[in-house]
Amino acid sequence: MIVILKRNAGDEQVQRVVSAIERAGFTAHVSRGEERTIIGAIGTSPQMRPHLMEVFGGLPFVDRVVAVLKPYKLVSMEARAERSVVEVGGVPVGPGHFTVIAGPCAVESEEQVLAAARAVKEAGARMLRGGAYKPRTSPYDFQGMGEEGLKLLAAARAETGLPVVTEARRPQHIEKVVQHADAIQIGARNMQNFDLLTEAGQSGMPVVLKRGLAATVEEWLKAAEYIASVGNPNIILCERGVRTFEQALRFTQDLAIIPLVKELSHLPVIVDPSHASGKRSIVPAVCRAALGAGADGLLVEVHPDPDNALCDAAQQLRPEQFAGLMAQIRKLAAVMGLAV
Amino acid sequence: MIVILKRNAGDEQVQRVVSAIERAGFTAHVSRGEERTIIGAIGTSPQMRPHLMEVFGGLPFVDRVVAVLKPYKLVSMEARAERSVVEVGGVPVGPGHFTVIAGPCAVESEEQVLAAARAVKEAGARMLRGGAYKPRTSPYDFQGMGEEGLKLLAAARAETGLPVVTEARRPQHIEKVVQHADAIQIGARNMQNFDLLTEAGQSGMPVVLKRGLAATVEEWLKAAEYIASVGNPNIILCERGVRTFEQALRFTQDLAIIPLVKELSHLPVIVDPSHASGKRSIVPAVCRAALGAGADGLLVEVHPDPDNALCDAAQQLRPEQFAGLMAQIRKLAAVMGLAV
Amino acid sequence: MIVILKRNAGDEQVQRVVSAIERAGFTAHVSRGEERTIIGAIGTSPQMRPHLMEVFGGLPFVDRVVAVLKPYKLVSMEARAERSVVEVGGVPVGPGHFTVIAGPCAVESEEQVLAAARAVKEAGARMLRGGAYKPRTSPYDFQGMGEEGLKLLAAARAETGLPVVTEARRPQHIEKVVQHADAIQIGARNMQNFDLLTEAGQSGMPVVLKRGLAATVEEWLKAAEYIASVGNPNIILCERGVRTFEQALRFTQDLAIIPLVKELSHLPVIVDPSHASGKRSIVPAVCRAALGAGADGLLVEVHPDPDNALCDAAQQLRPEQFAGLMAQIRKLAAVMGLAV
Amino acid sequence: MIVILKRNAGDEQVQRVVSAIERAGFTAHVSRGEERTIIGAIGTSPQMRPHLMEVFGGLPFVDRVVAVLKPYKLVSMEARAERSVVEVGGVPVGPGHFTVIAGPCAVESEEQVLAAARAVKEAGARMLRGGAYKPRTSPYDFQGMGEEGLKLLAAARAETGLPVVTEARRPQHIEKVVQHADAIQIGARNMQNFDLLTEAGQSGMPVVLKRGLAATVEEWLKAAEYIASVGNPNIILCERGVRTFEQALRFTQDLAIIPLVKELSHLPVIVDPSHASGKRSIVPAVCRAALGAGADGLLVEVHPDPDNALCDAAQQLRPEQFAGLMAQIRKLAAVMGLAV
Repeated sequence: MIVILKRNAGDEQVQRVVSAIERAGFTAHVSRGEERTIIGAIGTSPQMRPHLMEVFGGLPFVDRVVAVLKPYKLVSMEARAERSVVEVGGVPVGPGHFTVIAGPCAVESEEQVLAAARAVKEAGARMLRGGAYKPRTSPYDFQGMGEEGLKLLAAARAETGLPVVTEARRPQHIEKVVQHADAIQIGARNMQNFDLLTEAGQSGMPVVLKRGLAATVEEWLKAAEYIASVGNPNIILCERGVRTFEQALRFTQDLAIIPLVKELSHLPVIVDPSHASGKRSIVPAVCRAALGAGADGLLVEVHPDPDNALCDAAQQLRPEQFAGLMAQIRKLAAVMGLAV
Repeated sequence: MIVILKRNAGDEQVQRVVSAIERAGFTAHVSRGEERTIIGAIGTSPQMRPHLMEVFGGLPFVDRVVAVLKPYKLVSMEARAERSVVEVGGVPVGPGHFTVIAGPCAVESEEQVLAAARAVKEAGARMLRGGAYKPRTSPYDFQGMGEEGLKLLAAARAETGLPVVTEARRPQHIEKVVQHADAIQIGARNMQNFDLLTEAGQSGMPVVLKRGLAATVEEWLKAAEYIASVGNPNIILCERGVRTFEQALRFTQDLAIIPLVKELSHLPVIVDPSHASGKRSIVPAVCRAALGAGADGLLVEVHPDPDNALCDAAQQLRPEQFAGLMAQIRKLAAVMGLAV
Repeated sequence: MIVILKRNAGDEQVQRVVSAIERAGFTAHVSRGEERTIIGAIGTSPQMRPHLMEVFGGLPFVDRVVAVLKPYKLVSMEARAERSVVEVGGVPVGPGHFTVIAGPCAVESEEQVLAAARAVKEAGARMLRGGAYKPRTSPYDFQGMGEEGLKLLAAARAETGLPVVTEARRPQHIEKVVQHADAIQIGARNMQNFDLLTEAGQSGMPVVLKRGLAATVEEWLKAAEYIASVGNPNIILCERGVRTFEQALRFTQDLAIIPLVKELSHLPVIVDPSHASGKRSIVPAVCRAALGAGADGLLVEVHPDPDNALCDAAQQLRPEQFAGLMAQIRKLAAVMGLAV
Repeated sequence: MIVILKRNAGDEQVQRVVSAIERAGFTAHVSRGEERTIIGAIGTSPQMRPHLMEVFGGLPFVDRVVAVLKPYKLVSMEARAERSVVEVGGVPVGPGHFTVIAGPCAVESEEQVLAAARAVKEAGARMLRGGAYKPRTSPYDFQGMGEEGLKLLAAARAETGLPVVTEARRPQHIEKVVQHADAIQIGARNMQNFDLLTEAGQSGMPVVLKRGLAATVEEWLKAAEYIASVGNPNIILCERGVRTFEQALRFTQDLAIIPLVKELSHLPVIVDPSHASGKRSIVPAVCRAALGAGADGLLVEVHPDPDNALCDAAQQLRPEQFAGLMAQIRKLAAVMGLAV
């Protein structure tokens, strides 16, 4: 890390900072410019770095401290020679593929989940999504069917062969999801629920990690590092929109971040256009845009009868809309050399 | 709720919307303007409202749906004749008081927590804060002392008489916090961890609910409603900065929201200036500003030796700074007719 | 507009609000729900609406005022039966086309602008961009060549046949731009420079109106309305990224807004990926994403030798990168039925 | 500035970067860590710095470039030994004072502006504000009285002795404002209207520079540097709220930035609570908070009859509210050792 001193720092102050750096086990490297003295701190462990940045930043005569290394390691592009492919129930997500995961917001009944699974499979989706444990911002909203819902998803998988992705909202859910499904989804509001991340990591099952609604790319990759640091490399990042001043749509989908994340990390990254926009008519355009931006796939909501859905009625695609979209996606993906 | 139709909606479309409203158990009230037809939907249960707003919003010919009632009820100002006082270990937070809660970011040792407790008590704090379960954005950071830390806090309370506020990060922590402390703090990243909110509510212990770093006032009050809806009215709201484009300080402290929250809700609201700014030299000015804005108190970090703190070294006040600040706070509070 | 009263508003208060509405020339339409009284205000002029929303919103007993009609009219989709095509020097921007406008950030020399114009034409761009009047956030930065730069752009047009789009920063520049170029660009920081908008409108020349860096869609369309309201319908909207908490890239490109703007307005909308990302390696992915999102074209920076550019060195594409991108864009546009 | 190379940069790449730095007139200072090579670039002119950061940032093998020096100089705290006092018509703004500037949003009539001036003077304001040239987001809103309004302000000054602060929206207005008033206000939407800044600077008259609604502190100080760089040091910064995701109030007032700006710059900084909140009932709390935060004064809207105001009806204080607020402000300022 680099410690930039304030303009008026004299020799005594430089020496105080050097001593603090050396006491912490760093080697100090002093560089005096015309207007500022800069001190490089070289050689300590990644574990100590964030803490020491705080400590040095709080010293008198220090203007600011700049990190040189990234605060994540296992998930960084530098940790591997190439981008990762994560397999979920035999279906690959990563380079060469554009993998579409589709299904209803929430599991509501056997009939509904089977109808959805058949429709999305026929249209070309490779995995089924559906929520059994729903996080709801109001205590008065529908909270999901729980384990019963997971069993219905498993039944839909048995019939269609589509692997299942479903959300766990608290550590106790993970065991159930492992039993009935193929990948654990961590929702946006839980991206920094560090206990949940650790237990999802320990399960060994693939994890779809949604970006927090106000999470920077760096925080998102640090959350992935929590999962990777307990030995689980099977992580799929999912951009689902961030909160900004623009509220004409529910969130602002951050698609330019896709090529950036692919420079920073070897993990595959997919896009959820349904929660970001909250509006059915917007979703197909964003799906095509995600493909253009280089995403590795989609997580998109499709419901056999959205007008009677128990949640997110306004954003779920109708089956015929989804089929039309997939036809277009296949042609565009072919131009880009990707298998759908 | 009010359903605003698109401009080109004809009689048949108006009728479809009216039918949907009536099927849902509402009474429809149609008002035709020169350019738009508006349909009021009167009389259904609060439970169904958010869902039906989604459903109606997704109908063709509907431009948008506007809520009339707030999505929270028990915590709203309309639910009570006057603002609430919440007592924590006998210390009041609410009208007529400006209650200062102070102590270190994390419990690090018996010596450290006792030194902090003595210093903040002598300077005039009425409660002690300190973290035993720390939420950390990186898996490589110090994660707190756990239950051992809670016992040290209880020992500091025994000596000083200061009630203790401390964070629970997951449902299992709540039982421990109830055993050793006086109020449960819910951190910003857990403001929408709905399972944690419910269990904190069920504990019956006072809850300090920090605002999520991208939470609107409405979402914050809905999170408080989760706690209140299981029968626990002892909630203290805590503004701790929100995430915005301005990153010269860590977060943007939203002080103008204090008088607004006091119009919307009867709950007391305090301010945490330490996490918001992340910078020691900024904290005293924000403490005075919080008092001016009408906050009911402060949650502020004070460490006997911040340069050697294991977390948040740059933001914790030194004991002598805190004592100077409290002297000033007492005089300003006297002008405003508040007991410190 | 709809006036929602506070819960405790009695008959006398309802009457006061009704009187205020009627004094302002509206017809009042009272609807009493179980918990709230709502008053519709029907039939006044669009000119008075924003002002009266303020006035009614400030009355005691009023909870809030909701607009029914949009605050823009001429540029709204409701004002026309179909989406507009805007022609710039004979080149169409609008339905059926994906029009690429390319060239250097700033005009630096005759050699540079001619090299750029030839390269972008050969690769398939239909118009030339280049800045002669540069808005710079620091007084110490290069401010552009002024009218001399405009003449060089005109010379490049003479040779290549590409119409020219260039920025005017203040009213006096407009006359010069009209003399030498084919479309006036209004920069993001001038989106609410209302005098500049009015004079650009009065010029009659096509206007490329960039979205302000913190402008909502509604404010952007209101700024377009300024131009349209003085009789100039030739407006091309340009999304160039908005400012959010995420600063890993310079701005957050808001692509999901493209299909939304196409629902709200008949104006064509293009995307500037260069200023939004500020990073060359990100630009091609965003260009493809803009096409997928349904944009009507691109405004993209290409420089014959970006490493020696006088501004925005890090974001301008190299000519060979641009040619490769255009080859891919042509194939994707063909799938979507668009002429490039 | 400091150039941080990518991890895989070899000797040849280091040499390329060093050569580029030396060609630009810098001295290069190479520091090889275990994982990264860092190159300091020492000794060039401030004019070239922002440009060269772009150029180096665009080089292959460069991870990122970090500025060491601030991009503003004349307005920085380092440029002076102490904080500045700016005098407007003989009234000081700066250390030791809490200067209240009050008056209506817009000048509407002789009667209105005189009534306002008398009321704010009697309550203790030291200057009069009032808009003659109004920037409006809709072309259909009231645009102000123009020069006629300036003359009414001058008449109010003649009667009350209060110096006048009023906005100039375009360069041509500045001459008129200089003729009739005592300080030029630059509005938030013009903070980066660089031509206007330059001409306001050249006028020599004190300038009240509002923060742009999405401007970082650094951009705000760079805008002030535009004014200072043409020889006008009489600048008063004014925080008026920034745009964030929270829209329960119109903007988010950023009060914690006040002590930060006072560390970074010697210029006085005041607070406008009226435009930030847009809501009369919120304004007094924010005024007290601004005092607590260390602001040097207020710019606050007061109207003799707000319910009939031609703009901002919901936010202007009634005269009796303002008088009550000033009584409280005087007592709090006395505690803080400030003259009101």
